[in-house]
Amino acid sequence: MPFGEFDAIRRFFSRPVPAGVLGPGDDCALLPPSGQSLAISTDLLIEGRHFFSDVHPRALGHKALAVNLSDLAAMGAQPLGCVLGLALPSLDADWLSEFSAGWYALADAAACPLVGGDTTRAVAGITLSVTVFGAVPDAQALRRSAARAGDEIWVSGQLGDAALALRLLQGERLGWSETEASAKLAQARRALEWPQPQLALGQALRSVAHAALDISDGLLQDLGHILSASACAARIHWPNVPLGPSLAGLPATIQQGLALGGGDDYQLCFTAAASARQRVLAAAQAAGVAVHCIGAIEAGRGLMLLDEAGRPLPLPDQRGFDHFS
Amino acid sequence: MPFGEFDAIRRFFSRPVPAGVLGPGDDCALLPPSGQSLAISTDLLIEGRHFFSDVHPRALGHKALAVNLSDLAAMGAQPLGCVLGLALPSLDADWLSEFSAGWYALADAAACPLVGGDTTRAVAGITLSVTVFGAVPDAQALRRSAARAGDEIWVSGQLGDAALALRLLQGERLGWSETEASAKLAQARRALEWPQPQLALGQALRSVAHAALDISDGLLQDLGHILSASACAARIHWPNVPLGPSLAGLPATIQQGLALGGGDDYQLCFTAAASARQRVLAAAQAAGVAVHCIGAIEAGRGLMLLDEAGRPLPLPDQRGFDHFS
Repeated sequence: MPFGEFDAIRRFFSRPVPAGVLGPGDDCALLPPSGQSLAISTDLLIEGRHFFSDVHPRALGHKALAVNLSDLAAMGAQPLGCVLGLALPSLDADWLSEFSAGWYALADAAACPLVGGDTTRAVAGITLSVTVFGAVPDAQALRRSAARAGDEIWVSGQLGDAALALRLLQGERLGWSETEASAKLAQARRALEWPQPQLALGQALRSVAHAALDISDGLLQDLGHILSASACAARIHWPNVPLGPSLAGLPATIQQGLALGGGDDYQLCFTAAASARQRVLAAAQAAGVAVHCIGAIEAGRGLMLLDEAGRPLPLPDQRGFDHFS
Repeated sequence: MPFGEFDAIRRFFSRPVPAGVLGPGDDCALLPPSGQSLAISTDLLIEGRHFFSDVHPRALGHKALAVNLSDLAAMGAQPLGCVLGLALPSLDADWLSEFSAGWYALADAAACPLVGGDTTRAVAGITLSVTVFGAVPDAQALRRSAARAGDEIWVSGQLGDAALALRLLQGERLGWSETEASAKLAQARRALEWPQPQLALGQALRSVAHAALDISDGLLQDLGHILSASACAARIHWPNVPLGPSLAGLPATIQQGLALGGGDDYQLCFTAAASARQRVLAAAQAAGVAVHCIGAIEAGRGLMLLDEAGRPLPLPDQRGFDHFS
């Protein structure tokens, strides 16, 4: 049965919002004052560029919100709400039902109500625009510019599985047989399609960590943003980098490319004073996530990668990701 | 000279933000607490659907922000900041320079700093996603649901010029010769391409008006949203509707179609108690904009359009605008 834009909004994007919030249907959404600074992040996601055309719509709904919540997490902010712009070539009830199920499951888990949006017909493929709002006490926000020489460098979770899944989906084999590659994809795919924003960890790290960000373009490039914003250097101990389980058995250089240069991890990379180590571990435990100390911030410029004997390793290819290059 | 995404952001979208605001470059933007409710509006604008491919980029930059600020105006909110998502088929320095000039001129005038965004490569045409944030005391927000029987209905400015320009740009002639049509387009085009969000009026109407919205899809359809949200009826006196100057000389039915069913006006339609008439006029004078009382809210359901003798007129075609119909 054909249905229209307003039906689509009513059927799939009109769940109740919390008391005190004005949701979709007026000129603006209204959120009550939080008394804290307002953290905002926005993303534009384009079919064929940021996601595959055949991605499961439930996973897409999850990930579109997750990558933005990950930015709130990296700031130490608590979600307040989100808005969604949706440009679709046509209205497909099954697709919308799955997409909204993936979206709302995460929105509910993160207490981040969908308060507004815009639906329109796409000329070409699907485009999603997501903007999230969070609250954080200004002095406790985890800025990229706050790293200091002597800080330890930490990452949450494990790195590289998502990048491996992406390369397998793009048809690479990395030396595996077709059967092996497809078993590896089955193992790694969840990391790519269902990233979990580290909101609890980000908030637990307020007043504990100095600088933080989420790893979206690859650890080394993202850490590079901290280094340039904080005007300092870093050394990373490769043996301390926590590798995703699907990277087992790969040559070290490929592991390095995936875990350090791959991206799509949506884990947090943060720095904290060496004296704060116990508080970092307590924050991670409270948030229910593993964290690993992988190196240290130093005075100066540059980034060194060291092997188990402390010898420099060549950096994997990780030029800045530029959508237009 | 070819340049990349990061250069484009640096060159065209990195103007300073006010003290106390954290602008682009971290995981999130940070705005200081306003102590008021947060008003949020978002729009997705697609080339070939919401704007012509050959629109002047400076006008596009203005309008993309203007239509969102208009939503803040309609809520009585004061702008706090905005974010911009930009998907472009290629990076064209001239285009970006003009687009950002149009955007920033309005952002500066409205004291609405650009605090974040996302730039990416489009697969097809240009897509813009705009999200604006404003502050309004919750009890003073101008909700669509607040109209009451006995209220007078007001509009700001004049209606229909933008809709006329759109129809002329789409190749219609409305009975005019080519020369006449092109003179009319020259007169009407500014209303379509350079709408002025009525921010000062919206804020001046706090505690004065009951319901308000901005006219984007045509007066009758938009007023219909107030009527259904407020569960009441309206009568509109056609002779009192302020017509744009370019509508002069057209048959009344065409004028009605343009001024009542056309859209893209971005004027405010609002209701206020008859006893508040002097305060409405004072608010309009303080905001430097003309307002006209065009009818009244009544108990019941439905909307009647009346001629100068109080006889019902047929409503112009104004079925709900649906991007998928």
